[in-house]
Amino acid sequence: MPLDVETQLSDAPGEHRDELRLWLRLLTCTNLAESKIRRRLREQFAVTLPRFDLLAQLERAPDGLTLSEISKRMMVSNGNTTLLVDRLVADGQLARFSPPNDRRVQVITLTEQGRASFADMAKAHGEWMAELFGGLTKAEVSALLALLEKVKVGLNAV
Amino acid sequence: MPLDVETQLSDAPGEHRDELRLWLRLLTCTNLAESKIRRRLREQFAVTLPRFDLLAQLERAPDGLTLSEISKRMMVSNGNTTLLVDRLVADGQLARFSPPNDRRVQVITLTEQGRASFADMAKAHGEWMAELFGGLTKAEVSALLALLEKVKVGLNAV
Repeated sequence: MPLDVETQLSDAPGEHRDELRLWLRLLTCTNLAESKIRRRLREQFAVTLPRFDLLAQLERAPDGLTLSEISKRMMVSNGNTTLLVDRLVADGQLARFSPPNDRRVQVITLTEQGRASFADMAKAHGEWMAELFGGLTKAEVSALLALLEKVKVGLNAV
Repeated sequence: MPLDVETQLSDAPGEHRDELRLWLRLLTCTNLAESKIRRRLREQFAVTLPRFDLLAQLERAPDGLTLSEISKRMMVSNGNTTLLVDRLVADGQLARFSPPNDRRVQVITLTEQGRASFADMAKAHGEWMAELFGGLTKAEVSALLALLEKVKVGLNAV
């Protein structure tokens, strides 16, 4: 799936050609980076990207998240958040509790073990980032961040 | 899935923070654009993104493609290319043939009907591109294309 077919598409006819090329190039870069991250997580940590993504979301939410909050925050598609959570609870990486004021709600948090195993992965992941985007100077990274911020604002306004 | 959670992640600690922010922003922009394109294809053409993607690949390959070539060129993940092709053949959008020199190979092409229905979608898709990236000036689109080209080259070299 995550192949670079953007090149062969970039001679598509019609108006708005640069915007089409921009979209295909964005998709190509995301697919390429994602496939490399996915492979490294699998090979070095025997972990899927949705699993890493879930742990990352919980690491940034010290009070825990409900299932529906987790689903909203996930950045990669995953078949079934409930199943993913069940597995990680069974593995001792996550814990579930109900707040005293509403026993119907289930909140999910990282266990100490989950936090520790995520920390190892996050460190490696940070190093991969530097490697994957190592072809850019600091100034280019900043310029790209600013332009993509503008893209994001525009997309949210449509 | 395609939510903008990049903002809340951008204060992640550690080195390589800008590269991490860059990756999350790339992913956020791609997810946002993809979800908008997916919805419009569904609402205006009752078509899925993998189906549109498949038609687009075949439109750019007048001699047709084998199943394995199609799988390699698809830019969005899809459960099962074989099934997708079967459905489009049944709908009269695609045709299959075996080249005379190798009867074991199956080549897939667009039918006239498939080509005509893709043309309508491609026209609308081009207009959506202009709208989705309308927040950028022509100069910003060019700058972004150049920077993403550099990202792509770097990712392919890792």
